Amino acid sequence: MHNPVVIEALRGALVESQHRGAVAVVDADGARVLAIGDVERPIFPRSAVKALQALVLMEAGAVERFGLRDEELALACASHSGEPDHVAGVVAMLARVGLDEGALLCGTHWPLHQPSALALSRTGGAATAVHNNCSGKHAGFLCAACAMGCDPTTYVDHAHPVQQAVKAVLEALGGEAIPDAHRGIDGCSVPTFAMSLAALARAFARFGTGHGLARERAAAARCLRAACAAHPWHVAGTGRFCTEVMTSLRKRVFVKAGAEGVYCAALPEQGLGLAVKIDDGATRAAEAAMAAVIARFLPRDDDGRAALDRFARPVLRNWNRSPIGALKPAPALFAG
Amino acid sequence: MHNPVVIEALRGALVESQHRGAVAVVDADGARVLAIGDVERPIFPRSAVKALQALVLMEAGAVERFGLRDEELALACASHSGEPDHVAGVVAMLARVGLDEGALLCGTHWPLHQPSALALSRTGGAATAVHNNCSGKHAGFLCAACAMGCDPTTYVDHAHPVQQAVKAVLEALGGEAIPDAHRGIDGCSVPTFAMSLAALARAFARFGTGHGLARERAAAARCLRAACAAHPWHVAGTGRFCTEVMTSLRKRVFVKAGAEGVYCAALPEQGLGLAVKIDDGATRAAEAAMAAVIARFLPRDDDGRAALDRFARPVLRNWNRSPIGALKPAPALFAG
Repeated sequence: MHNPVVIEALRGALVESQHRGAVAVVDADGARVLAIGDVERPIFPRSAVKALQALVLMEAGAVERFGLRDEELALACASHSGEPDHVAGVVAMLARVGLDEGALLCGTHWPLHQPSALALSRTGGAATAVHNNCSGKHAGFLCAACAMGCDPTTYVDHAHPVQQAVKAVLEALGGEAIPDAHRGIDGCSVPTFAMSLAALARAFARFGTGHGLARERAAAARCLRAACAAHPWHVAGTGRFCTEVMTSLRKRVFVKAGAEGVYCAALPEQGLGLAVKIDDGATRAAEAAMAAVIARFLPRDDDGRAALDRFARPVLRNWNRSPIGALKPAPALFAG
Repeated sequence: MHNPVVIEALRGALVESQHRGAVAVVDADGARVLAIGDVERPIFPRSAVKALQALVLMEAGAVERFGLRDEELALACASHSGEPDHVAGVVAMLARVGLDEGALLCGTHWPLHQPSALALSRTGGAATAVHNNCSGKHAGFLCAACAMGCDPTTYVDHAHPVQQAVKAVLEALGGEAIPDAHRGIDGCSVPTFAMSLAALARAFARFGTGHGLARERAAAARCLRAACAAHPWHVAGTGRFCTEVMTSLRKRVFVKAGAEGVYCAALPEQGLGLAVKIDDGATRAAEAAMAAVIARFLPRDDDGRAALDRFARPVLRNWNRSPIGALKPAPALFAG
């Protein structure tokens, strides 16, 4: 099955590039509200499920035991830009369990936020694992391991109780068993599990509403959503999609990016879970498609629509900031 | 028409993402040797035609008049990484016509080569237009304008004699008239002209062989190819595709990347011109596809094949350098 073109990139009057993809929207009872393209093929959600991975942290009792703050819960759900306050937050999380950045097994890269990377270099600093965009999630895994009384030195292994608990959460919320063949290794070295787009949308409908979840899990999900809505900058960073959209819509939306063109979202007031995968893995297209799909299900008079429109139809500019083209949601996104 | 999948991105055993695209290979007489997907649809070649744009510099007599060196001709054809010697080379080019980086209208970005960007910041420097990956091409335009006796302050305008000469070269080599509607603005603010992939392949077959070109133009093309073959690092930079492939194959190949998933190449010994466009604009897929197509037409015992294989089937690694997947050329590239 060929997924349809969902985003076109225009240069002047011509289509320069185009992105195919699939979209699933499911309600809190698990019923399909929208299916564009193949929503049954397994895809790797990558970082788009960090908030589901963080349920393990919550259910281990780490918040009460270690006094984790809301900013830190947002960092556990984050692909952060490595700006100074992201880094300080992760260092603080690690300190709560008596660890430092040497315990992080995510690998090292320079901050995604270029001004922060350049400033770090300008002041004689160097990148460490704490600058990795996944360091908050890893700090969360370490806190979970400590709360569960498990070895914190092997937390990235598939067989580790934290990763086994993550897999169980994904299976329970998605409503699909995950076969061994669907296990891959993520960019930060933890397991990532391929699931259908329909299952991901179902998982986020449950995450956003608590429907079908045990009381403790529903409360944990509510707590993570509240933390991200209160601290959207900690979930991504300056100018980024998840931050901008959650800053505009606050608790009316939870949205999270994953690598290779994935986005997952929950619209609690509408009782919907949303999942997008761009076939080719392009972030620009995943952002534009997710913005268009969120806007499709929001009330017409919602004052957060302007932020969504900016991402759904961004103007493309050259290095002199002159407009040279635009991204445009394709008809499939509206008619699917 | 749907272009076929040409590159798959695997994570573990599953296909995580896939890239569709088109490939045209044409011989020096203009006959089609290979056509995968739609090779008639106009696409923007972007920086893949910098060497054709540089023909204007050559034909203006700038080399003799200003004493341009081979490294500088390679920079005129380059999308360079902004490493210190790239920057020094562009500054030297500008000085030959009494100009400095203030004359560049390409806009500013930090060096693409991250260690160079970080080092620039560490030593208290800041990015200027000379770090823009297109600054060598722009320095070439300025040298051409000076050699032609034209105003060097408006060289990016469509109506400027340099840009009009560029358009005429593209039409002559591609063998297609370029309608006004096919003009866009490139990332560096000069015009870019959409052409069919077949016309681009034809242009590079002529550029690589001189067939069908006037003697002066054939000599100019030979001179540019020799400059790039002798100084492939100046055409891109450390570790990059064009540099690595031309370092391995020297004058047996000329290859140049363009933004949004474009590659053009010439195989002079085989008398072939090659052009690739990935539908979604992904560089990783364009590199892998171009590497596979070049390898397809090289002799089986060519000792440059190892470099091509590394790009055609790269292992994908996480931040800990562990292998987590691979890019794989799809059957369409072999059977098309």
